[in-house]
Amino acid sequence: MKNRRILIDELPSGKLELSNYRLVEESVPEIEEGQVLCRTLALTIGAGTRAGLQGSASYAGAPQTGIVMNGTTVSRVARSTVAEVPEGALVVCPGGWQDYSVHEASALSVVDESLDPADYLGVLGTNGLTAYFGLLHVGRPQAGETVLVSAAAGSVGHLVGQIASIEGCRVVGVAGSDDKCRRLVEALGFDAAVNYKSDDFRAQAKAACPDGVDVYFDNTGGEILGTALRLMNVGGRIVCCGVVSQYDTANPSPGPRGVPGLLVNKRIRMEGFLVFDFADSYSDARAQLHRWMDEDRLTVWVDEVEGLENAPAAFVDLLAGGNVGTRIVRVG
Amino acid sequence: MKNRRILIDELPSGKLELSNYRLVEESVPEIEEGQVLCRTLALTIGAGTRAGLQGSASYAGAPQTGIVMNGTTVSRVARSTVAEVPEGALVVCPGGWQDYSVHEASALSVVDESLDPADYLGVLGTNGLTAYFGLLHVGRPQAGETVLVSAAAGSVGHLVGQIASIEGCRVVGVAGSDDKCRRLVEALGFDAAVNYKSDDFRAQAKAACPDGVDVYFDNTGGEILGTALRLMNVGGRIVCCGVVSQYDTANPSPGPRGVPGLLVNKRIRMEGFLVFDFADSYSDARAQLHRWMDEDRLTVWVDEVEGLENAPAAFVDLLAGGNVGTRIVRVG
Repeated sequence: MKNRRILIDELPSGKLELSNYRLVEESVPEIEEGQVLCRTLALTIGAGTRAGLQGSASYAGAPQTGIVMNGTTVSRVARSTVAEVPEGALVVCPGGWQDYSVHEASALSVVDESLDPADYLGVLGTNGLTAYFGLLHVGRPQAGETVLVSAAAGSVGHLVGQIASIEGCRVVGVAGSDDKCRRLVEALGFDAAVNYKSDDFRAQAKAACPDGVDVYFDNTGGEILGTALRLMNVGGRIVCCGVVSQYDTANPSPGPRGVPGLLVNKRIRMEGFLVFDFADSYSDARAQLHRWMDEDRLTVWVDEVEGLENAPAAFVDLLAGGNVGTRIVRVG
Repeated sequence: MKNRRILIDELPSGKLELSNYRLVEESVPEIEEGQVLCRTLALTIGAGTRAGLQGSASYAGAPQTGIVMNGTTVSRVARSTVAEVPEGALVVCPGGWQDYSVHEASALSVVDESLDPADYLGVLGTNGLTAYFGLLHVGRPQAGETVLVSAAAGSVGHLVGQIASIEGCRVVGVAGSDDKCRRLVEALGFDAAVNYKSDDFRAQAKAACPDGVDVYFDNTGGEILGTALRLMNVGGRIVCCGVVSQYDTANPSPGPRGVPGLLVNKRIRMEGFLVFDFADSYSDARAQLHRWMDEDRLTVWVDEVEGLENAPAAFVDLLAGGNVGTRIVRVG
């Protein structure tokens, strides 16, 4: 029995490449008193982890090589020294890109078997919680307002739009293909969706928001943020959630023109957040998200890839916009 | 008796020039029922009005030529058809750069004679109210926090710093000359002040804020904003008040790198405001500002220029950083 592990071999100098990773096989680690050995069932890949590979430190700290690539997993307890987390339990943990991981019991959350593991990584995991707290606590939309969301077909975006609809808002998505846009409107009930790769993206975005934008949920930064700034209404709010347009490059673009000038003229609040700051309220949020799923008001998109060895390619593809919804790699 | 009026002759194509204005002499206007004729005593010149001359519309609307240059004045009522505003009353009004202006009574605020007219244009006018509401209602500093303010020797900035000191904060100013910096520390009690024209401005700013920055009151935008962003603490607030670095040019620079990335990592709230949104609370704010003046806790800097004909030169000089405190032109 071996433990396949995918290590960060080298930090990307431009776009992320497969060669930045290296697959090694090691023996399955031993555990000590207080520790738990977990077998990875599935892991999630999110664009935000690309920021952790950038030369400058992100909120995750300075990047390192020679370590296993980080990522949240749903795992099965394979061996345990801790009564509260018995062998066979299903847990969510920061397992990373490997077959087996070792944790202190405090790093694990035991979850029940009633849901697909993917749901613990998507809608009830960091992505769903990010959508929930970012939109409702930072953006604070009111019924009747227009909410614009970028990376709208992504793991966070597709949930943001649906929650905004539940709150009674007009919802407009920005995505990177006509197919994604069509699916946002037809399958998720977005009021409109605009392809940012269109030649007339700005005009299309303006037409899709005839009453302007009250809340812009920004997953991308860059030019889409610049366009949104021009559409914002007086008193608008920009939720700064992620900067996916700037992760996969050695040359992040300058900030948008209009910052801070348009923020003054339009009295805009632009606010960044990290979901971890809301940890005390996770269980309430999960209960609400679960309720909306049960009521068929929230459709969860999961984008599955098979095999740990395919994780690097799945990540490279995700950064190029290849995913729809939360990208999950099934491992064991 | 003539009415000298300074008209906007042509919109500036780059930096503002004297030739953008034209002085004309007309007869003193007649008034109709409901109107009041005001003789200008003093007018205030603020950098924000430069934005109104830019090609793109500011919050003040699209710029126009052939009209009198706008500006708030303290004026003496010269003729009146309205009992509540009798001849001889002292008023604050949007008189503009001219000897005489005509207003509906509703556009006037009658003020008493106990203060210097300059105070009605500075600390108790738009500048003081902007400092008060921007710092306290948008920035919301807590005692013990560090407040950084740019254009710190300017009409708004010198008051922001002092109010932050009153609130128990460490106060650091950014200004454009060593002399201004010295005066901020020695005369106004700033804890430190840094000249942004220094070669090692970034290092000096960092050294002046050993605990980072919790509230940055931004009057400038541009590179100073970029420097401040890097010094911000987690949970920091950036009060977007003005963009003086970008007004006097045909080529505003792009927004700062780090927007929105640093806003996410540091959970920063960046918020624009216009003082007019707080009009309902002006009288409370004026009372507080007046109290602080009486208690010698607030020192008001006024920078006087004599003669209406010198207003254009005073404005050009102000945009080059020539003023300390609120620039007032004495007219009549």
